Amino acid sequence: MTNTPYGSPTFAGWRDAASSEWQAFTQHAFVQQLGDGTLPREAFLHYLVQDYVFLIHFSRAWALAVVKSESLAEMKTAAGTVDALVNHEMQLHIKICTEAGLSEEQLYTAEEDIENLAYTRYVMDAGLSGDFLDLIAALAPCVFGYGEIGPALKQSAVPSTPYQDWIDMYSGAEYQEVCHAVGAMIEGAMCARIGDTPQNSPRWNTLCERFRIATRLEIGFWDMGLRGALRAETP
Amino acid sequence: MTNTPYGSPTFAGWRDAASSEWQAFTQHAFVQQLGDGTLPREAFLHYLVQDYVFLIHFSRAWALAVVKSESLAEMKTAAGTVDALVNHEMQLHIKICTEAGLSEEQLYTAEEDIENLAYTRYVMDAGLSGDFLDLIAALAPCVFGYGEIGPALKQSAVPSTPYQDWIDMYSGAEYQEVCHAVGAMIEGAMCARIGDTPQNSPRWNTLCERFRIATRLEIGFWDMGLRGALRAETP
Amino acid sequence: MTNTPYGSPTFAGWRDAASSEWQAFTQHAFVQQLGDGTLPREAFLHYLVQDYVFLIHFSRAWALAVVKSESLAEMKTAAGTVDALVNHEMQLHIKICTEAGLSEEQLYTAEEDIENLAYTRYVMDAGLSGDFLDLIAALAPCVFGYGEIGPALKQSAVPSTPYQDWIDMYSGAEYQEVCHAVGAMIEGAMCARIGDTPQNSPRWNTLCERFRIATRLEIGFWDMGLRGALRAETP
Amino acid sequence: MTNTPYGSPTFAGWRDAASSEWQAFTQHAFVQQLGDGTLPREAFLHYLVQDYVFLIHFSRAWALAVVKSESLAEMKTAAGTVDALVNHEMQLHIKICTEAGLSEEQLYTAEEDIENLAYTRYVMDAGLSGDFLDLIAALAPCVFGYGEIGPALKQSAVPSTPYQDWIDMYSGAEYQEVCHAVGAMIEGAMCARIGDTPQNSPRWNTLCERFRIATRLEIGFWDMGLRGALRAETP
Repeated sequence: MTNTPYGSPTFAGWRDAASSEWQAFTQHAFVQQLGDGTLPREAFLHYLVQDYVFLIHFSRAWALAVVKSESLAEMKTAAGTVDALVNHEMQLHIKICTEAGLSEEQLYTAEEDIENLAYTRYVMDAGLSGDFLDLIAALAPCVFGYGEIGPALKQSAVPSTPYQDWIDMYSGAEYQEVCHAVGAMIEGAMCARIGDTPQNSPRWNTLCERFRIATRLEIGFWDMGLRGALRAETP
Repeated sequence: MTNTPYGSPTFAGWRDAASSEWQAFTQHAFVQQLGDGTLPREAFLHYLVQDYVFLIHFSRAWALAVVKSESLAEMKTAAGTVDALVNHEMQLHIKICTEAGLSEEQLYTAEEDIENLAYTRYVMDAGLSGDFLDLIAALAPCVFGYGEIGPALKQSAVPSTPYQDWIDMYSGAEYQEVCHAVGAMIEGAMCARIGDTPQNSPRWNTLCERFRIATRLEIGFWDMGLRGALRAETP
Repeated sequence: MTNTPYGSPTFAGWRDAASSEWQAFTQHAFVQQLGDGTLPREAFLHYLVQDYVFLIHFSRAWALAVVKSESLAEMKTAAGTVDALVNHEMQLHIKICTEAGLSEEQLYTAEEDIENLAYTRYVMDAGLSGDFLDLIAALAPCVFGYGEIGPALKQSAVPSTPYQDWIDMYSGAEYQEVCHAVGAMIEGAMCARIGDTPQNSPRWNTLCERFRIATRLEIGFWDMGLRGALRAETP
Repeated sequence: MTNTPYGSPTFAGWRDAASSEWQAFTQHAFVQQLGDGTLPREAFLHYLVQDYVFLIHFSRAWALAVVKSESLAEMKTAAGTVDALVNHEMQLHIKICTEAGLSEEQLYTAEEDIENLAYTRYVMDAGLSGDFLDLIAALAPCVFGYGEIGPALKQSAVPSTPYQDWIDMYSGAEYQEVCHAVGAMIEGAMCARIGDTPQNSPRWNTLCERFRIATRLEIGFWDMGLRGALRAETP
């Protein structure tokens, strides 16, 4: 791990300030089971349906970042991310779910679990109540967490895992480029609003806290995924 | 139960459309234990701390209703409710918590449970994504639910329950008046936007769904309260 | 003129309800001078700089429409329009302005005239205070007005007008397709929220009023453009 | 003039950074004519009607400040200001307008002039796009400007001016206390987000710019008032 993952010392700082949550998120049992192939299909499908709805609201949150941009560069990165989410990342979900017999309309109208509601609406409200940085700090754990998990699984996963498509997407060049673009955008946004030594600003703690809470909600999201298998087992 | 509880046929309709959730919310074990006095003190205090933070965000949501008002009457009712929340309802929480050794600053900065995050941020986002009615439909279950629970407990509670203050507040004239004011506001708001037969409008189902989800989140809130006792028991 | 311009009876109804403003907007002296080539260069450049800033905020408003979408179709159309604005329509402005010696950074930071502030911020607040329809009704005059003005000038303009590029863009297939996509989106959005006879709903007048005010602000925008020439003449 | 008007060095700094606009605002012809009594009644009434609608949106903006508060103190001051506006400041407008034969409903639905739209919607969007400080910087010129104008006119006005009620309100203890409360709130908010030397932060210039634009829009508001007399003269 470098000091400037995705070119962003800010992300490195936020991650350090939430290190126990970060570890619980990126090394969660759900993640390990994706890699060793033991994740029950029901858990994965439950996760995928919820994650589709998550991505709808995540796209809304990135669109809110366009609303809150204060420079051309911010606006273009945020608008590009909306496009990447709607037209790329969500397509894998649709493809896999369609194969499992779920239509996109069914995905769109799926009942959201409480962990899902909590996470996405927390991010939206971070944007409504704060500024661009508050919103981005709440968006960052998902972007960068999946950016770390993808390549880690790419290395460690057993060849027989049925979740190779998922691993390939998040370890792939396209997704990793999004992470780098977001990393660069964060550095620019911090510099334009807080200056060169953000850790000395009173806002540093507030932003760390936003990042920490969103990371906590990522853990809940994996918990929710695992619960999907239990449900399916209930007669 | 009348057809126009708090003068609002709309509320009656929404409640009917979510009847199983409404029952689970208003007759929850937490509520019954408030009345028969068996609710563990730890559960009540845990609830009270979370509810204080809830009321902060509930006040923010009513302030958002001021932002989204389209008539003088809506604006005055919403602004009055913000005032009632900040300067009245929250004071009981502060008083009881202070007696238990918790300062208002500690309340304000308490770590929010996931059920709390989910509920309050869902309401805020209903306001950001929809109009005044979307926001109000998400605010209604809390207002009217406590309005029903208070008087019901007032009748059924055992004299020895240590939670008489809480019961008195929500069954009291002041709180019941807030419910009537909100009921009247909802009727006016529905009429001004949807007309005389709201149940024939496509928006009716959307608003019922908002009300249902918020009611579901109320159930989660009581669950969270009961869990407070379990935590306290853990060594 | 058909009854369903751009496939949208709703737009036709809104336009009829604001017919005098609509005529003053679409047949404004600024428009006529674009066609007969008499528009002073200074007026056009002043307009173009202000319109660039306008498009920044117009993109923000369409991003807010993504935030406020309630269906996949709405989300995709709104996200596609943000992309069309940022990556297509704004490019002509940048190209012409660059030729005139103005950098994109200068455009981005240009001081906004009061007519520009009034228009764009009115649209943003329509989105914050209302729902998706309120926002769209405030966005519609610009989209469809330019959609009508472009082809009208394409027919009537003198061959020697120096503003052929501008006319070509708004009469071109790409822009006209955006208009049709927005028209279809509006019909779907109205049907999903108000039903089959929107003119009978109390919301009809509110939406007509949003459309009328935004059209009035379009007239102010052309006035501002013409004033640009007067300024340049002042020694 | 002191260095800490209303206990706020921040306001002093913002005012200095916009000194020419501030002077044009606080010493505008409209203000002078309020004091020497030469302001045409038509101009005052036109201003008063527009200012009533302004206060509606100003109240919405202060309610948005409640939504964006990050401390109890901020929340209470913002909520208190909403109350002061709706239940106190607007009453004088209603009283005078009623005497002139205008009902509150007529005030509420008055057609807004473009200067009015520009100002109020700019403030709302400052809140949507930025954080609490962005919103407050856009709200500050009105609060403090009237706070300065009132006492200045109290000293200089001729005894025969028919605008003594207006002067008394803004020079009165109640309004001046609001200014002090807002001044204290600003100092706390700056300290909590930017720290002890805000002028060294990159945000300082952004906030100065917000304050400057809102001050520019105050000038436009007085211009609009004077125009009210011209209209009345037109046969």
